[in-house]
Amino acid sequence: MFLHRQELQHKAAPSKPDAIYARRLQEVLGGQYGEITIAMQYGFQAWNTHIPGKYRDLLFGIAAEEFGHVEMLAVMIAQLLEKAPVQQAEDAAKSDPVLGAVMGGMDVQHAIVAGAGARPVDSNGNPWQGSYITSSGNLLADFTANANGEMQGRIQAARLYHMTDDKGVHDLLSFLIARDTMHQNQWLAAIEDLKSEGIEQLPVPSNFPQSKEDNKVAYTYMNFSDGAAAQEGSWASGPTPDGNSEFSYADGPTSSVPMPPPTTPDERLYGTDPKSNTLEKAKAAVKDAVEKK
Amino acid sequence: MFLHRQELQHKAAPSKPDAIYARRLQEVLGGQYGEITIAMQYGFQAWNTHIPGKYRDLLFGIAAEEFGHVEMLAVMIAQLLEKAPVQQAEDAAKSDPVLGAVMGGMDVQHAIVAGAGARPVDSNGNPWQGSYITSSGNLLADFTANANGEMQGRIQAARLYHMTDDKGVHDLLSFLIARDTMHQNQWLAAIEDLKSEGIEQLPVPSNFPQSKEDNKVAYTYMNFSDGAAAQEGSWASGPTPDGNSEFSYADGPTSSVPMPPPTTPDERLYGTDPKSNTLEKAKAAVKDAVEKK
Amino acid sequence: MFLHRQELQHKAAPSKPDAIYARRLQEVLGGQYGEITIAMQYGFQAWNTHIPGKYRDLLFGIAAEEFGHVEMLAVMIAQLLEKAPVQQAEDAAKSDPVLGAVMGGMDVQHAIVAGAGARPVDSNGNPWQGSYITSSGNLLADFTANANGEMQGRIQAARLYHMTDDKGVHDLLSFLIARDTMHQNQWLAAIEDLKSEGIEQLPVPSNFPQSKEDNKVAYTYMNFSDGAAAQEGSWASGPTPDGNSEFSYADGPTSSVPMPPPTTPDERLYGTDPKSNTLEKAKAAVKDAVEKK
Amino acid sequence: MFLHRQELQHKAAPSKPDAIYARRLQEVLGGQYGEITIAMQYGFQAWNTHIPGKYRDLLFGIAAEEFGHVEMLAVMIAQLLEKAPVQQAEDAAKSDPVLGAVMGGMDVQHAIVAGAGARPVDSNGNPWQGSYITSSGNLLADFTANANGEMQGRIQAARLYHMTDDKGVHDLLSFLIARDTMHQNQWLAAIEDLKSEGIEQLPVPSNFPQSKEDNKVAYTYMNFSDGAAAQEGSWASGPTPDGNSEFSYADGPTSSVPMPPPTTPDERLYGTDPKSNTLEKAKAAVKDAVEKK
Amino acid sequence: MFLHRQELQHKAAPSKPDAIYARRLQEVLGGQYGEITIAMQYGFQAWNTHIPGKYRDLLFGIAAEEFGHVEMLAVMIAQLLEKAPVQQAEDAAKSDPVLGAVMGGMDVQHAIVAGAGARPVDSNGNPWQGSYITSSGNLLADFTANANGEMQGRIQAARLYHMTDDKGVHDLLSFLIARDTMHQNQWLAAIEDLKSEGIEQLPVPSNFPQSKEDNKVAYTYMNFSDGAAAQEGSWASGPTPDGNSEFSYADGPTSSVPMPPPTTPDERLYGTDPKSNTLEKAKAAVKDAVEKK
Amino acid sequence: MFLHRQELQHKAAPSKPDAIYARRLQEVLGGQYGEITIAMQYGFQAWNTHIPGKYRDLLFGIAAEEFGHVEMLAVMIAQLLEKAPVQQAEDAAKSDPVLGAVMGGMDVQHAIVAGAGARPVDSNGNPWQGSYITSSGNLLADFTANANGEMQGRIQAARLYHMTDDKGVHDLLSFLIARDTMHQNQWLAAIEDLKSEGIEQLPVPSNFPQSKEDNKVAYTYMNFSDGAAAQEGSWASGPTPDGNSEFSYADGPTSSVPMPPPTTPDERLYGTDPKSNTLEKAKAAVKDAVEKK
Repeated sequence: MFLHRQELQHKAAPSKPDAIYARRLQEVLGGQYGEITIAMQYGFQAWNTHIPGKYRDLLFGIAAEEFGHVEMLAVMIAQLLEKAPVQQAEDAAKSDPVLGAVMGGMDVQHAIVAGAGARPVDSNGNPWQGSYITSSGNLLADFTANANGEMQGRIQAARLYHMTDDKGVHDLLSFLIARDTMHQNQWLAAIEDLKSEGIEQLPVPSNFPQSKEDNKVAYTYMNFSDGAAAQEGSWASGPTPDGNSEFSYADGPTSSVPMPPPTTPDERLYGTDPKSNTLEKAKAAVKDAVEKK
Repeated sequence: MFLHRQELQHKAAPSKPDAIYARRLQEVLGGQYGEITIAMQYGFQAWNTHIPGKYRDLLFGIAAEEFGHVEMLAVMIAQLLEKAPVQQAEDAAKSDPVLGAVMGGMDVQHAIVAGAGARPVDSNGNPWQGSYITSSGNLLADFTANANGEMQGRIQAARLYHMTDDKGVHDLLSFLIARDTMHQNQWLAAIEDLKSEGIEQLPVPSNFPQSKEDNKVAYTYMNFSDGAAAQEGSWASGPTPDGNSEFSYADGPTSSVPMPPPTTPDERLYGTDPKSNTLEKAKAAVKDAVEKK
Repeated sequence: MFLHRQELQHKAAPSKPDAIYARRLQEVLGGQYGEITIAMQYGFQAWNTHIPGKYRDLLFGIAAEEFGHVEMLAVMIAQLLEKAPVQQAEDAAKSDPVLGAVMGGMDVQHAIVAGAGARPVDSNGNPWQGSYITSSGNLLADFTANANGEMQGRIQAARLYHMTDDKGVHDLLSFLIARDTMHQNQWLAAIEDLKSEGIEQLPVPSNFPQSKEDNKVAYTYMNFSDGAAAQEGSWASGPTPDGNSEFSYADGPTSSVPMPPPTTPDERLYGTDPKSNTLEKAKAAVKDAVEKK
Repeated sequence: MFLHRQELQHKAAPSKPDAIYARRLQEVLGGQYGEITIAMQYGFQAWNTHIPGKYRDLLFGIAAEEFGHVEMLAVMIAQLLEKAPVQQAEDAAKSDPVLGAVMGGMDVQHAIVAGAGARPVDSNGNPWQGSYITSSGNLLADFTANANGEMQGRIQAARLYHMTDDKGVHDLLSFLIARDTMHQNQWLAAIEDLKSEGIEQLPVPSNFPQSKEDNKVAYTYMNFSDGAAAQEGSWASGPTPDGNSEFSYADGPTSSVPMPPPTTPDERLYGTDPKSNTLEKAKAAVKDAVEKK
Repeated sequence: MFLHRQELQHKAAPSKPDAIYARRLQEVLGGQYGEITIAMQYGFQAWNTHIPGKYRDLLFGIAAEEFGHVEMLAVMIAQLLEKAPVQQAEDAAKSDPVLGAVMGGMDVQHAIVAGAGARPVDSNGNPWQGSYITSSGNLLADFTANANGEMQGRIQAARLYHMTDDKGVHDLLSFLIARDTMHQNQWLAAIEDLKSEGIEQLPVPSNFPQSKEDNKVAYTYMNFSDGAAAQEGSWASGPTPDGNSEFSYADGPTSSVPMPPPTTPDERLYGTDPKSNTLEKAKAAVKDAVEKK
Repeated sequence: MFLHRQELQHKAAPSKPDAIYARRLQEVLGGQYGEITIAMQYGFQAWNTHIPGKYRDLLFGIAAEEFGHVEMLAVMIAQLLEKAPVQQAEDAAKSDPVLGAVMGGMDVQHAIVAGAGARPVDSNGNPWQGSYITSSGNLLADFTANANGEMQGRIQAARLYHMTDDKGVHDLLSFLIARDTMHQNQWLAAIEDLKSEGIEQLPVPSNFPQSKEDNKVAYTYMNFSDGAAAQEGSWASGPTPDGNSEFSYADGPTSSVPMPPPTTPDERLYGTDPKSNTLEKAKAAVKDAVEKK
């Protein structure tokens, strides 16, 4: 259950309208790694989790914060769009290159569809979609997805920081970047927490019996390109992070088999194959066509 | 440049056709974390990388292996579909419940669209899409994305392992799961490698100056739900993984501001607002309509 | 700002697991008119609204309730999936038609991707997308969209009611259907409220001057099909709902102009047109090719 | 069956080419509420309707008109694009800011993909999709969706009217806006017609027995936000539009239950849960891995 | 302008309802090569064409026929769904395997969303989308796309023919397959017509001067795989279909250059590169973070 | 199996960075007819083919070349983006129209998401998707799709050629256009090869017995528009390309039947129909609601 307060966690007001920047800021609202993704990902992980206690509480606690971040960005974008010109700028597109540049860089659906409002889309206008989120039920994998989400989010916010000098926008981004710092650290800590509690280990999923995997190839780097430098990395020799083995290096595949022969499905699927499409059959079809007339 | 050999890295042939399982196996071919995602993600990271040497070689080396995994799964699926019944099974759907169940569980586009062939879609028939991949140019973030990709992939392959008893399928999955084990370990090793080389640190991106973020909230867990257990986690106290601070815990937001007032955009966007939509204006519009007649 | 409580507005627990029904229930969670759509639509309308006071408070108040409905459905679906069989049922698909039918009707990504968890998708596995929502900034139009959303949602819930006899599911649907009753009524009341406050009128947008529209065709039904019965409807004669005119009826279009001539764009776009693709040009291109060798 | 005439219902020719405006006009051709949506929505509602007579004739009659509107917009866009510059403008992007602004604001696929032709996409280049339309089989709900569609469409056309001063475009928009006026009125009239004929009532669907819904919460506004003004609306007290009850107001939820406990699915789904992921199991998996070597 | 007649070009009525088959038939209504694609493709080609006369008339004439095919399939699907069971079949899913198989194989959105109506989706429930169509402005290319569209459509209809023994469905498919025969032939004839009129030649676009292409590689098959048989094809030697040259064969690429060095973008994009991410910088960032506390 | 070499088939380096052009070039990388489509289409056709020998070898041989083209375009785009300005250009957007035009025309996700890297999207930022490819199992149809793909690709590359004067870009496009020339010719040759080998004929699929199609309409052009010129084409009289008949011409449909009556599905789907939604039922529902209170 969610209760709403007409407050924001941090001030979200630009110093001045900027329709071009509003479009860019959509990325961290409705993009692949925007706040809608983050909020929904933590929400679904919470609803799907199989353990009561600290991990579920963590997911609930932070999901709700992130829905508030969605709100902060949406109201910021609406304010950035507040004075987006309509006819005036359009006239300008033809004669005033400065305003013309503004129009060229803004998201036209901000004006036509939303009437100067925020939208659940990314900075190219692609609608947010459910396939952006990850919730597998395995917390070690999902917390790794979360750490990545917070990293990508912080990178994007840092890039956006340099694309404006608006003090109000900087103020909000400064807050969001700090929260990303916290959340990166938090998920990395939670990963170690899971391992130290002994309920998940590497490789994920740790309780799939490794005796069932093909252990000849489980710790060997195989180099399918002709660059020699990959051999110098810590992934080519030395102990493996899961603590179960040592890395080895192979220049190319260590095994191969011939390509299997082509398949021959049911003739009534009308694929091209030597059995069903002989010259004789083709001639018969033609004859059939001719006779039919 | 890619050169193709008509060989597979491992045998990919089922013991018998199984159209239902073919549909399921599409998940690890064309799903969010399927091999197309993995191959394309490593490819784009390689093409976009900014460092010569071992990291780029690693990306090239493994991307090419993964395109071969796409191929192994595609030919496996084509063989699983080889004897998918057409009319016979359709008749059966009405009278023979066993065959009926087969038809209900298969991907009908396997027959209608691909003529018993593999497709670039997931197990629900959603087409693969470019928005599944991650390539930010920041290797610490992207290698974390890669580690997550290999974890999710290994989980899905492990689940699929139990959904058949076909020896040929088990044999291939056993191989792929082992490679996922390697690749999970590899990316985790590469993350440490990046840090020990001193070219990336936490938090990502590490060269965004932390003095520009709002440091009051950079290391505090704020609990927006009413579960108390999140306080017990290692993300609520103790040193942070980036080595820069200590975690603290707050029960709820540590700051708030009132919701900003609503925006008032240009009247010609025809939004509902008190200035442009007064009763007087509405009356005038009606008068205008009446007079116009 | 959203605060989360680990409570639900209503009990959400099935009497027994039912993986087939879990798939169907996804429609009202992540479909075109599912609760994610409803919650996000009200949220964006609130963030984009231009009026303080009762309408914005209404949007905030109900958006938060709807995020809680998302949660109720997600936890319900996770419980419906709790005992979805894995290997056992898969074996069954081959020999036990009852279990086979179960497998045929479930969403396979529930098992493979989410590990028996809810997902942000509809009942066919299509991911939820931002293009489902409507937020134009014009409240009379948007409240009409909301009324439609609640109607479609109540229809779908009513259909789903009859597709199970699980008492726990009936109990939750009975609650959600009642809330849909409320919300349908609420938006219809809010539409009248807007009109009686004099800030919006029909036709929407009411402050676009009707003198600028082509008033000869603004109130005439034109029949482009050959069914005569449409003339009997109240849309073919009598006063119009906006109070500005009378309906009239025309059998077919009341005006027409010839199709404009084809366009002739820049030759370097290589379209087929008589100017740029003359026989002479084609011959010259061939000559050019021959000489080049 | 559709028969085509090489005529348009209204003149569709711009005074001059304008590639930027061509992009914007795509919204009302191929956007969420563009003419393709409207035409297809009425078409599918007609094909799916369950009643012969005036309602079906209405749907057929107007669907055909709307396919003609698709055509008018497509030929208008092709003409707006007719002189879209190619190399010249591209050179200009580097040195002439006026032409540069033109290029920045146009849809580049208009040139690269369509060779100065219209496309079935919105103003951001998102392809039209079938999930934009609504056809539930319930006419009261669907006519409400139609009324909303015509409202959103008229708002967008009105906004677009101000984004150009081209007389030819104004002339067409003036015609289309007038038809939207008609169609808004028409669907609102048809809604009342349905109710007065006694075949649909509120709440939709009216023949789902209200005794099966949870009547304690069917007419109560519950305020999940902390804004007090929503209590002042006509949705918080007084008679309900369906005529069946009175609205009441509650400050927050009127009921709640604890969050259900987490689920515990089959172990072979490899989710994280206390039963399947004990420290003992994890140790055994490690031991298994070590011994296997 | 389109005028509608309440007639069909051919009878479209099944002998009996069949909800499973209704789902399959969606492929040729709303799939990649379904009738919506075909109708919209011809429509956009007509609206975008640059030549008056026979080619444009052809496109208009057949586009309108195809919109009628959309209608025939939609009403056929609605009738196939007419008796799709609701509660009864759902009960059956648990105890009656025959009915269970029915439910497993049908499109659940047919019932939940459309109330036993047709939908603009394919046989896996993916919504139709504008990116399925092709309209480049070059008629030789587009007519080739059309020929392919009719071929794929006829293949799918032929496959569907064998998936039922319903006489009414066979009757309609028999008609549609015959029209596909006509339309395949028609586009192939139109391709030759274009060439014999001398307004388009091979290679497409024929008026791009071949002197601007790299003529060393314009007619050589290069074999990037290790299969030797491709050398035997008529694409490896002999005259080329465009009449401009002779095919030659090369075993692998005939040229290569080293991979270019990695890029080094602006530091403020926070990519990983040796200049901006030195150990010194990383240390400074840590120092900055520590001092800031 | 794919092996990677750190070489390119042709030089791919621009003379200077150009962020606007980078966006445009995305079309031939990740668009509907971009190199990802082409590579994946040939790959899936190879994996799904039913014939060993020259056709499969051809598909393998060229698929691998095309994956290398994906790589060439990706590294070209990364280099075009290398110096995309960040803060500087953003400042410029406000005061320097030349740089402003640059920013307006670039893909903002190139900077925000990819850090100056290539992406698997088209020139409007739409992600590449699996539904772009065609692989039916029927080689005559699929080779026609391939010929179309190479034609559309060559048209787009030719258009892009004129949108820059960068010598490095021209050099690469000149190479790619030449390869498109080869591949167009190759598929057209392969189509004739298939026919001369006697394993496929027209109409596709040639082994569906024409006696099962409705031969009365299999070779007649029916004109559903009022343009008379289509009668002059070679598709309206004379021999048909499949060699089986003669074309004839009809002005309009040669047959028609009345529209079937509306369907009447199960009442519990709550559609609007005269049986289930009588006035009596509606009154009873109201009574039910009143009594329930």
